[in-house]
Amino acid sequence: MAIAKTPKPPYYAIIFTSQHTKNEWKEYEETSAKMVELAQKIPGFLGVESVRNENGFGNTTVYWKDKESIKAWRNHKKHKKAKKHARSIWYEKYFLRIAKVENNYGKI
Amino acid sequence: MAIAKTPKPPYYAIIFTSQHTKNEWKEYEETSAKMVELAQKIPGFLGVESVRNENGFGNTTVYWKDKESIKAWRNHKKHKKAKKHARSIWYEKYFLRIAKVENNYGKI
Repeated sequence: MAIAKTPKPPYYAIIFTSQHTKNEWKEYEETSAKMVELAQKIPGFLGVESVRNENGFGNTTVYWKDKESIKAWRNHKKHKKAKKHARSIWYEKYFLRIAKVENNYGKI
Repeated sequence: MAIAKTPKPPYYAIIFTSQHTKNEWKEYEETSAKMVELAQKIPGFLGVESVRNENGFGNTTVYWKDKESIKAWRNHKKHKKAKKHARSIWYEKYFLRIAKVENNYGKI
């Protein structure tokens, strides 16, 4: 995983924080990889940054061009199915924030 | 580290992604803890979520009430000093995004 190379703002960030139960770890990792693969095909996908520590606490932030692309991903059939499973089996706790990136800078 | 309990939107998120060099790890951890302690004292601080994996890739997202509180923290003398050191010794790469949280939901 690396720092996402996103365009000049404005664009959107979906900040997803979660505490993993550590149940079905292998299945979770496979599904995560598959979801990234599918999300990348949605027009407006700009990048993803994902990190989880040894305690199962993680942050996945996905960058999108606009609200339309976020909506397309939210309503994606396979994504909806994965979310349902994730919320009942994998995520002990989770929180999702939809935020409009107004400015950015760094060294990448 | 846990999911931050933030108020009803709108509020701001500073999404900070970084690749750590793993240099001066102990000093880095001490400074990070100290910075969180100081940030919490700034009016408008709403919460922080921080996660780094075994490869040194990390995300620290800090939530703030408004741009004024972000500015107060950005200009904090001890924070400025720490940032300078961090950018030369600790962070191989980093990227900071300022985003306005418009909506949120979850199970916490």
